[in-house]
Amino acid sequence: MAIKIIVAGPRGRMGKEAVHMIHNTEDFALTACLDHKNEGMKLSDLEAFQDDLNVPVYTDIEKCFSEQQADVFVDLTVPEAAYKHTKAALNHQIRPVIGTTGYTEEQLEELKQLAKEKQTGCIIAPNFAVGAVLMMKFAKMAASYFPDVEIIEKHHDQKLDAPSGTAKKTAELIQEARSPKKQGHPDEEETIPGARGGDFDGMRIHSMRLPGLVAHQEIVFGSAGQTLTIQHDSMNRASFMDGVKECVYQVMDMDELIYGLENIL
Amino acid sequence: MAIKIIVAGPRGRMGKEAVHMIHNTEDFALTACLDHKNEGMKLSDLEAFQDDLNVPVYTDIEKCFSEQQADVFVDLTVPEAAYKHTKAALNHQIRPVIGTTGYTEEQLEELKQLAKEKQTGCIIAPNFAVGAVLMMKFAKMAASYFPDVEIIEKHHDQKLDAPSGTAKKTAELIQEARSPKKQGHPDEEETIPGARGGDFDGMRIHSMRLPGLVAHQEIVFGSAGQTLTIQHDSMNRASFMDGVKECVYQVMDMDELIYGLENIL
Amino acid sequence: MAIKIIVAGPRGRMGKEAVHMIHNTEDFALTACLDHKNEGMKLSDLEAFQDDLNVPVYTDIEKCFSEQQADVFVDLTVPEAAYKHTKAALNHQIRPVIGTTGYTEEQLEELKQLAKEKQTGCIIAPNFAVGAVLMMKFAKMAASYFPDVEIIEKHHDQKLDAPSGTAKKTAELIQEARSPKKQGHPDEEETIPGARGGDFDGMRIHSMRLPGLVAHQEIVFGSAGQTLTIQHDSMNRASFMDGVKECVYQVMDMDELIYGLENIL
Amino acid sequence: MAIKIIVAGPRGRMGKEAVHMIHNTEDFALTACLDHKNEGMKLSDLEAFQDDLNVPVYTDIEKCFSEQQADVFVDLTVPEAAYKHTKAALNHQIRPVIGTTGYTEEQLEELKQLAKEKQTGCIIAPNFAVGAVLMMKFAKMAASYFPDVEIIEKHHDQKLDAPSGTAKKTAELIQEARSPKKQGHPDEEETIPGARGGDFDGMRIHSMRLPGLVAHQEIVFGSAGQTLTIQHDSMNRASFMDGVKECVYQVMDMDELIYGLENIL
Repeated sequence: MAIKIIVAGPRGRMGKEAVHMIHNTEDFALTACLDHKNEGMKLSDLEAFQDDLNVPVYTDIEKCFSEQQADVFVDLTVPEAAYKHTKAALNHQIRPVIGTTGYTEEQLEELKQLAKEKQTGCIIAPNFAVGAVLMMKFAKMAASYFPDVEIIEKHHDQKLDAPSGTAKKTAELIQEARSPKKQGHPDEEETIPGARGGDFDGMRIHSMRLPGLVAHQEIVFGSAGQTLTIQHDSMNRASFMDGVKECVYQVMDMDELIYGLENIL
Repeated sequence: MAIKIIVAGPRGRMGKEAVHMIHNTEDFALTACLDHKNEGMKLSDLEAFQDDLNVPVYTDIEKCFSEQQADVFVDLTVPEAAYKHTKAALNHQIRPVIGTTGYTEEQLEELKQLAKEKQTGCIIAPNFAVGAVLMMKFAKMAASYFPDVEIIEKHHDQKLDAPSGTAKKTAELIQEARSPKKQGHPDEEETIPGARGGDFDGMRIHSMRLPGLVAHQEIVFGSAGQTLTIQHDSMNRASFMDGVKECVYQVMDMDELIYGLENIL
Repeated sequence: MAIKIIVAGPRGRMGKEAVHMIHNTEDFALTACLDHKNEGMKLSDLEAFQDDLNVPVYTDIEKCFSEQQADVFVDLTVPEAAYKHTKAALNHQIRPVIGTTGYTEEQLEELKQLAKEKQTGCIIAPNFAVGAVLMMKFAKMAASYFPDVEIIEKHHDQKLDAPSGTAKKTAELIQEARSPKKQGHPDEEETIPGARGGDFDGMRIHSMRLPGLVAHQEIVFGSAGQTLTIQHDSMNRASFMDGVKECVYQVMDMDELIYGLENIL
Repeated sequence: MAIKIIVAGPRGRMGKEAVHMIHNTEDFALTACLDHKNEGMKLSDLEAFQDDLNVPVYTDIEKCFSEQQADVFVDLTVPEAAYKHTKAALNHQIRPVIGTTGYTEEQLEELKQLAKEKQTGCIIAPNFAVGAVLMMKFAKMAASYFPDVEIIEKHHDQKLDAPSGTAKKTAELIQEARSPKKQGHPDEEETIPGARGGDFDGMRIHSMRLPGLVAHQEIVFGSAGQTLTIQHDSMNRASFMDGVKECVYQVMDMDELIYGLENIL
């Protein structure tokens, strides 16, 4: 029988992708949507949704969860409401799959307790790109065998920060696994400052910025006579939906709260 | 205290690399060598070995193991003697790290029993390139999330077989993990036969052969909006020594026989 | 002074991109548009165009060219009208930059004569992606020094034909430059048929098809101890506009017809 | 008829490779060698040369050039003697192919005059790796269409200087071709200093240093919706011999001095 799902923020960029992913997945059934407005309307009444999407739209989360018997609640909206929504879903034993951050330590702890108490699965993940999460997971695994590693991340030239958040996260995970090491030749010299990239705990991170690039990262491990490279190329947001789908399946068999996609892959 | 090691076939290509790796590793101590000839000589007496390598050379394995208190026995020689050597080492409770194949099922089973009985660790690995083994391990892990995958392996143009053994091994591991799938468009057409590569259980394998290449492999996983690539580049045999080193460390804490580097990494 | 440009098919996918590229390029001025309908309207009257795009829309090409003093005529529409439009533009000495094919040999010859007679520059290009054209140009140049080469092209798995048209075009250009050569080891064997890719005049072409890929091609040249790789990655149609822009600049200084972007880069 | 060649420094690393390359090239014939010692011996008398290499060894360059009717003089030795050797060869109208630098402006000018006067071809090249030179040539060509470019060079971690000489040379050639441009977002920020690499005239250069790497360089050009990448991977010194071979053929048809492989490819 299909997994019954309620989606929050169906008109948002990510929400819209989620609605279509669910609608196009055989095992899934879209039961209702939670929105800021359009109470009492059908999704199909709204622009940009097909006519066969005649599921009810609610603005009141309690009303929504009471009237609709759903298995999973998917929320990819802004952080503000995340805590409130997650708590409400857990209380109704509707398994939350949440794509936003913005929880305090205390809130997370409370939600963990609540999930255990209600024996209801719950997944909270800041990053749903399965490929990116696997890349980081593999990098951490490889780092315990290959302490010599450099990261090069490549993004469009509209990006403001360098290195990227993913590159830093990757470096932190590698740091946990490898014996600390100052890489490169002890006497190496930069004839152009910055050529050797940014130094993070002895490993180097390089940030390329060019028009035509989207979001790419290479992690290169080197040891005598060989290199091992793990690379992720992300073209668009569609890549997140694989992660949401995976989480919906897995949360069905869980009875506790797990934070971070890396902990279920 | 240093780990005491006996090496078989010190004059062979791999054996020579092993001798130097051990000699240059602080935690390791080369105790003796097993050879076809040069009984009673010192390694330093032989051409191509430094003067400080004054370790005894034996031609009789029993004599060698009886006279020398070693922790580990490293054998990277030809298959013929593998079974006999491994058995002898286990009987002397000197932990074998064996880089050759050529065992019958029966022999492997017998050695497993012997290792358990003697409570002596033993590692037998056809491939010591840590990078290649990790690549295959990661590929298998990724395959359960990304059923769409193609392999491209690149080798020098003196190689006779296509695809490479590693590519086939990788495809088999992926096959174990993924739900079978016929990839590409159902109606795709080759206007030049072979363009889509070799078909292995629905996934495609491509073999590039060019002068200037050594031994390289890329595994590309694709899903909506993203690709994940795992790549290994091997320049020379030195890459095997990392694996041997890793095995020497790990076999010290083992009390059974493990086959395949992938099972200890 | 800005280059005055008339665009055909402003509502089409490519036409719309051209309109915005011209509008956003300082040296360019959009003078008018040629369309199937909307005679007498302004572009800004049509949906999806900004209010400041108040340029006249014509349905009659003769009327358009007579009333508007333009320097260049950009046509990225369907082949059908290409010949007629190009001829009309040349007669009005408005330099055509045409992105469609669909000319007979005779028509091309006639247009060449007309361009010479009118001393009016004209560029007809089936492919406006500067990067792809440069990749092919470089590949041809490299082939005369490196006869050993393989091509791997990577596309989304909705593509029906393999190899791609660009891969074939590239192979033909390489063929013109290199001394013919049967690559790989004379005795090489495919244990999986097709692994070595498609054979084009002795060089091999490999076609990868995966979701998440867009349009990519690598050309790898190998010789003793080195490889040279030329790679083009195309993410979307925006890449064509660089070529159109380049052509608009160059056609201003020409007084004849040139076919193919490779002949002006 | 075979091209008759004299090699200087046959016992040196490069000299030895040259001797074997010439010996294994059908169109070439090794006539004699110039050395510091071994006057009057045959090359085959020296260790590490096959018995069929029975060509005379000279220590006196004048004696060598007078007694041996050669077409080409190949010198890959140290700079010191370069000027003297080149001058002597030109005077004997034996075409020099010189792989060393270390000339003053005055010396080069004098040699150019001498070559013209003697109507004798002469090639002086600091870098004989055809692939690397083509990479630089293509990069310069592409730069006039794609002003946005970044360079990433990858070398073993024993290399002291960053960026590499080739990377700098490449950047200088790109600088000649492109309109100067400060790349990246004007407001971009490095949260880890150096992440964006070294700044050369507004383009960024990144230097990766890892064991297992040899000598690699990627030049990535980006523009709306596309990237063009030119990559050279050098595994060992054998890659230089292709360049020497090419020069020997070309110098036969020249009657002047050309400096730099890029000017004959």
